[in-house]
Amino acid sequence: MLSQQQVPGAVENILRDFVAATAPSLDEISPVVAEAGAALAEFVLTGGKRLRPLFVHAGWQCAATGPEATATEALALRVGGAIELIQACALVHDDILDRSDTRRGRPTVHRRFSALHRDQRWTGDSAHHGASVAILLGDLALAWADDLVHGLAPTATNTEDETAPTPLPPAAGTLWARMRTEVLGGQLLDITNEASADETVDAAYRVMKYKTAAYTVARPLQIGAALGGGSAALSESLWRIGSDLGLAFQLRDDLLGVFGDPEQTGKPSGDDLVTGKRTVLVAQALADSDAPTADTLRGLLGRPLSADELVTARGILIDSGALTSVEGQIDAHLQTALGEIDALATSVGAREDLTALAYRIAHRQK
Amino acid sequence: MLSQQQVPGAVENILRDFVAATAPSLDEISPVVAEAGAALAEFVLTGGKRLRPLFVHAGWQCAATGPEATATEALALRVGGAIELIQACALVHDDILDRSDTRRGRPTVHRRFSALHRDQRWTGDSAHHGASVAILLGDLALAWADDLVHGLAPTATNTEDETAPTPLPPAAGTLWARMRTEVLGGQLLDITNEASADETVDAAYRVMKYKTAAYTVARPLQIGAALGGGSAALSESLWRIGSDLGLAFQLRDDLLGVFGDPEQTGKPSGDDLVTGKRTVLVAQALADSDAPTADTLRGLLGRPLSADELVTARGILIDSGALTSVEGQIDAHLQTALGEIDALATSVGAREDLTALAYRIAHRQK
Repeated sequence: MLSQQQVPGAVENILRDFVAATAPSLDEISPVVAEAGAALAEFVLTGGKRLRPLFVHAGWQCAATGPEATATEALALRVGGAIELIQACALVHDDILDRSDTRRGRPTVHRRFSALHRDQRWTGDSAHHGASVAILLGDLALAWADDLVHGLAPTATNTEDETAPTPLPPAAGTLWARMRTEVLGGQLLDITNEASADETVDAAYRVMKYKTAAYTVARPLQIGAALGGGSAALSESLWRIGSDLGLAFQLRDDLLGVFGDPEQTGKPSGDDLVTGKRTVLVAQALADSDAPTADTLRGLLGRPLSADELVTARGILIDSGALTSVEGQIDAHLQTALGEIDALATSVGAREDLTALAYRIAHRQK
Repeated sequence: MLSQQQVPGAVENILRDFVAATAPSLDEISPVVAEAGAALAEFVLTGGKRLRPLFVHAGWQCAATGPEATATEALALRVGGAIELIQACALVHDDILDRSDTRRGRPTVHRRFSALHRDQRWTGDSAHHGASVAILLGDLALAWADDLVHGLAPTATNTEDETAPTPLPPAAGTLWARMRTEVLGGQLLDITNEASADETVDAAYRVMKYKTAAYTVARPLQIGAALGGGSAALSESLWRIGSDLGLAFQLRDDLLGVFGDPEQTGKPSGDDLVTGKRTVLVAQALADSDAPTADTLRGLLGRPLSADELVTARGILIDSGALTSVEGQIDAHLQTALGEIDALATSVGAREDLTALAYRIAHRQK
């Protein structure tokens, strides 16, 4: 069994093999398609903390306590890799929706292809071209996620004898289906709340529940357990644990998005304020401030901020009690999850590993 | 065994059941998400000629000649329904890329949600909101395609005992993977050719090969045959037949896009000229006209046209010999395919049905 430290590397090996297998079919179409595919492959291979694969593996570890368990660990890593491809689609498409220029300190995919269009002095609108390429590359990542989760690949041959890939157990397949609908549904709710200026704490929590908590923690844990042959009772416990940890994860993200160190987060200082993100932190401050203060805060959302304005906005988030409240909510979700983890009927090692992940995502600095 | 006439209805029943099964999980997230999902469901259920499912079924019929065949017909219909969900994603996303206002005589999905944004007097940019919703609904259709093809659904429960859905045979899975990468790769090539103003006949043919021929006819036929347990030799024959028929289909589409009757096609007269689509028809006319005439034609592409200008453009396409040439190419591809169909080692009924489909797509009026 792999240790937590070994999981990201193992998942990256799977992703490296998968994108290498897709390359000939893209090359065959055209060099420009191969280049676009290489940009997607680079995006997939260089990014992220691989949190979702870690939760799939942790869920699998909770279930796979018998001696026959090692047979399904490879499947857990494969599914972890597939979720990273969904995440690639989500990030590439979200960056179009949010009009983001940079991600992980580099140009976003749509900006990269807008720049190519400009540099080549092609005809038409560079921004529209960049967005169009990014829509298609996100689609490709989403299609590849399903190929990988089912053990398929768009290989260049199609008539040879083939052996059947290991199928997903039915319970894992249903959770996989739900997870994708939930993250897309949560994102639809997010942009609709933003458009309709719904600034309530309730609305922000509902988006977190589906867009983040289910997708990032709860469903990956449950899928992992299903791959390891876990019981329905274990799945229900992991759903509750994952929902609490996922909320703690997003609430921490909201704090880092306003108070985080740009050196650590890779995002500009106060980025969530500048982009006007609807977070529980901001919703809480708006709800708990007097009307003039709330109006001042509203005026500091969704536009570039001077250093002084950023200090003012942060001051309101602190003085309203929102910062303290969100820290308290993170701690409450973490404690609830830790209590459930302690009560899990699994190995000591599985409980320890899940506990370590719980502290990590609730108290991370980046 | 279903007749060709029964296939579209059977596929629509599968799609109706599938989208009904997704509804509770969208309702649970929020009423606004349920509404967006209902818009997607309506788009999927009201549209199209169901050509791709017809080719899956025809390919299956070529392979499934034994008495045990009926067991796999349900699988062929399921896969046909799944391709219609891919098609929904392709159309919704293409309409963003092409900035199309109408589809099948109704507002496109992104326009529909732009209008909602405007009508509700929401904050932000209505056009960007509409495109954002359409990106996410296309993603949802693509995710659902993979759920359906593997017999999964994002149902509202996740801990009950479940039975395993019928898996795809390995060869069908690999073809499914290839097909999705090919259509997206072909579309990437198409927008890049458009941006780089590559107006050669070669470039237009290469886009047709992957974006249309493989995706619309050749891979569906092969997938169907794989579902019916067909041989590698049958698969290779169907690849060749499908490639010829797919090219004939797209070349006919190009003619209808310029010369078609709006009453029949549901698109404005001369729509492909107005949108500046890179077709073989136009590429051929540009290649075969003298320089001033070619420049005149170029000046009539990619912008609204008066009735007189449309007459001028059509005149150039006719006088250059491009119309006659494309009709000749359609016929040549059709004849090649018909010869191969006659030589197929399958039942008389399967050959007759495939022949009927071949004539239908090569000579359709809409």
